[in-house]
Amino acid sequence: MKTITSRENAFYKELKQLATSSQARRKAGRSVLDGVHLCQAWLDLHGEPLYCVVSEGALANPEVAAIVQRLEAAHAHVTALPDALFGAVSQVEHGINLLFVIDTPHPAQPARLTESAVLLDGVQDPGNVGSILRSAAAAGIKQVYAGAGTAFCWSPKVLRAAMGAHFVLEIFENVTLLDVVRSSKVAVLATSGYASERLYNVDLRRPVAWVLGHEGQGVSSELLELATHRVAVPHAGRVESLNVAACAAVCFFEQLRQLQA
Amino acid sequence: MKTITSRENAFYKELKQLATSSQARRKAGRSVLDGVHLCQAWLDLHGEPLYCVVSEGALANPEVAAIVQRLEAAHAHVTALPDALFGAVSQVEHGINLLFVIDTPHPAQPARLTESAVLLDGVQDPGNVGSILRSAAAAGIKQVYAGAGTAFCWSPKVLRAAMGAHFVLEIFENVTLLDVVRSSKVAVLATSGYASERLYNVDLRRPVAWVLGHEGQGVSSELLELATHRVAVPHAGRVESLNVAACAAVCFFEQLRQLQA
Repeated sequence: MKTITSRENAFYKELKQLATSSQARRKAGRSVLDGVHLCQAWLDLHGEPLYCVVSEGALANPEVAAIVQRLEAAHAHVTALPDALFGAVSQVEHGINLLFVIDTPHPAQPARLTESAVLLDGVQDPGNVGSILRSAAAAGIKQVYAGAGTAFCWSPKVLRAAMGAHFVLEIFENVTLLDVVRSSKVAVLATSGYASERLYNVDLRRPVAWVLGHEGQGVSSELLELATHRVAVPHAGRVESLNVAACAAVCFFEQLRQLQA
Repeated sequence: MKTITSRENAFYKELKQLATSSQARRKAGRSVLDGVHLCQAWLDLHGEPLYCVVSEGALANPEVAAIVQRLEAAHAHVTALPDALFGAVSQVEHGINLLFVIDTPHPAQPARLTESAVLLDGVQDPGNVGSILRSAAAAGIKQVYAGAGTAFCWSPKVLRAAMGAHFVLEIFENVTLLDVVRSSKVAVLATSGYASERLYNVDLRRPVAWVLGHEGQGVSSELLELATHRVAVPHAGRVESLNVAACAAVCFFEQLRQLQA
């Protein structure tokens, strides 16, 4: 384990850039995993990061110590920082000071949709995107296609909200959703509060692609038109709509309920 | 309509206090509704606010103009502020500059639970609490009991996330949930990722109380023990858990599905 104590150190300056600038992360093709939960999940599912950074104070934490020990045994790159220097790179307040830097996964997009998937059509809130990824992974869906206007899936806020779901999903970003839907081999279900078909009346015991839209405007009219079904979650109250991540959870788990029934 | 142009005006100073300090809102027993959607929903469901504040620039917006006109016709209290003064009281970036100040509703807590309800046991994230309120209202649930450690339901962030659901719900705060559960006349279902009973195996065609827990620790062990059922949403993936608001949506809409089937 190396220790860096100077803010002028080149590695530290590069790390701080990565940790605080989404542009720097995109340019480098790297992501930052902040906190024990995300780092542990990455380690369990993908192995070693490019490098691990830990604050000196966090080394006393048994979970952190176990991760660092495992990395050092594998001769991985671990750097310790004084707590003050770590504080300037972490976005998590009151967190445990551990982070991994990884190469952002860029899986090759399949030629056609042939299995259950989630299509994000301008879902802009990072918390919503993270919650949707987490629900998709929990429901056994493996592919996510993010179209224009959707929050960048590997941003720190989305990573935090998804709690490691990223690492069991294939996430395709900057996708032209119209092309994906046009060439899809599976039924495409666009969610809309205005749809007349009830979610529960659709046979979901087969792969389907779920299209989820912008928090305010919903799914774009082109995608609504192209979809095989436009489905609504039936309501009973005097409020007009659901949060998009709540709607996603209801849809994904209704599919799983039907599959397991 | 009055116009205030000085930051030293007593009304403006009081408004700024209310808008920026949760302590001031609690002490005054008032809440601030920020933005056209919340204000319109309040007006439709509850009528006039204590007072309405609008930025001069927003008066050109037709939705805002219609609300102001309706309030003035009813001789309600409307104050216009120059945009710069309004900016200092609004928490919404790039929003439409309209806000209502209302007396925070304090419905009397029923002696016993006799209908479907949501019990929040330390749900701390305002976005999650707001999303849960919104899903509950959409699923036709009318009562929410917030226990210790739960985010203050009338905070601006919760109000924003719930999109007006507050105004069709009865929200009881600072509740001792153990007492509510002990005296409940309806079945109490505590959600837990570790529960062995599947959500879908429970008969939900009757009123039930849903207990939702802290984002990390889940429902407290005392409440888990007291509950009639401990239920899990069955998963299919390699991730361990759902976001609490996603879990809530799945539960509420499974109840509605059974009720409507």
